[in-house]
Amino acid sequence: MMHLILADSELELIPKKLIKHPAVRNSKSKILDASLHHAAMKGLKQWQRRGRPDIVHVFLLIANESILNKEGMLRTYVHTRNDEVIYIKPETRIIKNYNRFKGLMEQLFEHGKVPPENEALMEMKKESLEELLDKLEGKRILFSMDGEKRKLENIMEEDVICIIGGFPSGDFLSPVHKMVDEVVSIYHEMLPAWIVGMEAIVAYENKFVK
Amino acid sequence: MMHLILADSELELIPKKLIKHPAVRNSKSKILDASLHHAAMKGLKQWQRRGRPDIVHVFLLIANESILNKEGMLRTYVHTRNDEVIYIKPETRIIKNYNRFKGLMEQLFEHGKVPPENEALMEMKKESLEELLDKLEGKRILFSMDGEKRKLENIMEEDVICIIGGFPSGDFLSPVHKMVDEVVSIYHEMLPAWIVGMEAIVAYENKFVK
Repeated sequence: MMHLILADSELELIPKKLIKHPAVRNSKSKILDASLHHAAMKGLKQWQRRGRPDIVHVFLLIANESILNKEGMLRTYVHTRNDEVIYIKPETRIIKNYNRFKGLMEQLFEHGKVPPENEALMEMKKESLEELLDKLEGKRILFSMDGEKRKLENIMEEDVICIIGGFPSGDFLSPVHKMVDEVVSIYHEMLPAWIVGMEAIVAYENKFVK
Repeated sequence: MMHLILADSELELIPKKLIKHPAVRNSKSKILDASLHHAAMKGLKQWQRRGRPDIVHVFLLIANESILNKEGMLRTYVHTRNDEVIYIKPETRIIKNYNRFKGLMEQLFEHGKVPPENEALMEMKKESLEELLDKLEGKRILFSMDGEKRKLENIMEEDVICIIGGFPSGDFLSPVHKMVDEVVSIYHEMLPAWIVGMEAIVAYENKFVK
């Protein structure tokens, strides 16, 4: 099984102090989104990296539609900057429309699960990255530009936990380096989270599917 | 070089006959989008598959941010249901926000290029899939569920043209089968275009990068 974690993702509700700002006041969605709320965000600490639900969306569109997931060999988790963890059932079909996806994320923050009635396809828990890792079995690989350059197929193990940063720039907020077995770099430039995810997924498929 | 073509993509302007429909009238974007215009689309032929700019968006986010593209070994094209072809410069950074991406597509339909001033990063030409293929060099591989199951790394050649359907269901509208050298299937279920794209890109990287 591959456990794939998008860590320290920039997914959060609009902070209270921003709610009266003109760039936010008429926002249809309660999810902070840099592409809409940019003008209001400059008062936030670390504002340049925050408000990126789009990264979470594309990452999940790749992970949950992948061959690896359809084969039942992938579990995907989204850990946020405020230490929430979203558990995503493998059978979840990630909604393709971005605005509706943000609506679902909003429901998660409000009700802790979606759909709010019936059995949950996605569930959000208050949990740190370390607490999540303690529940999972496998070699822990962190993807980071300061890691060693390795061919992914060589380091994949049948039980593996891949940790990928869910932020557009900067470094992990969680103390990840002390939690992992190996730190690898797959390219000399910063790559978007979904590209790292796709490289990890296909490497695992090539080694273990069929 | 890998040439990657998203063929018969469901990308188009809102058809004139829909413009007065209540579900369309107040639409901010002129791009047909099934997730917004669903109620208005039932009068269109093949309405179930049309209006999918989201597929184009995710496909381009994967292709243009990939390691293969950063290495200068990928060229990406979007061919539409109405025989337009979008040429995308490898250095183009695809805009992450979905609504703004649709705005750019609208500009392409209106001005033929973006940005409308200065040197174009994306350009749209009236052109069939066959006319596009005639300009490109390489083995032509069509991805289709009715193809032969093959390991992608084995069939990739250094000069290769990969053709992937840019629609959510059904078959190609263009007579693709007579234009290609090989038809391959990589899975026994229908996969989204971006998943096929990622498998093709990583297979080519594994064989030819470094």
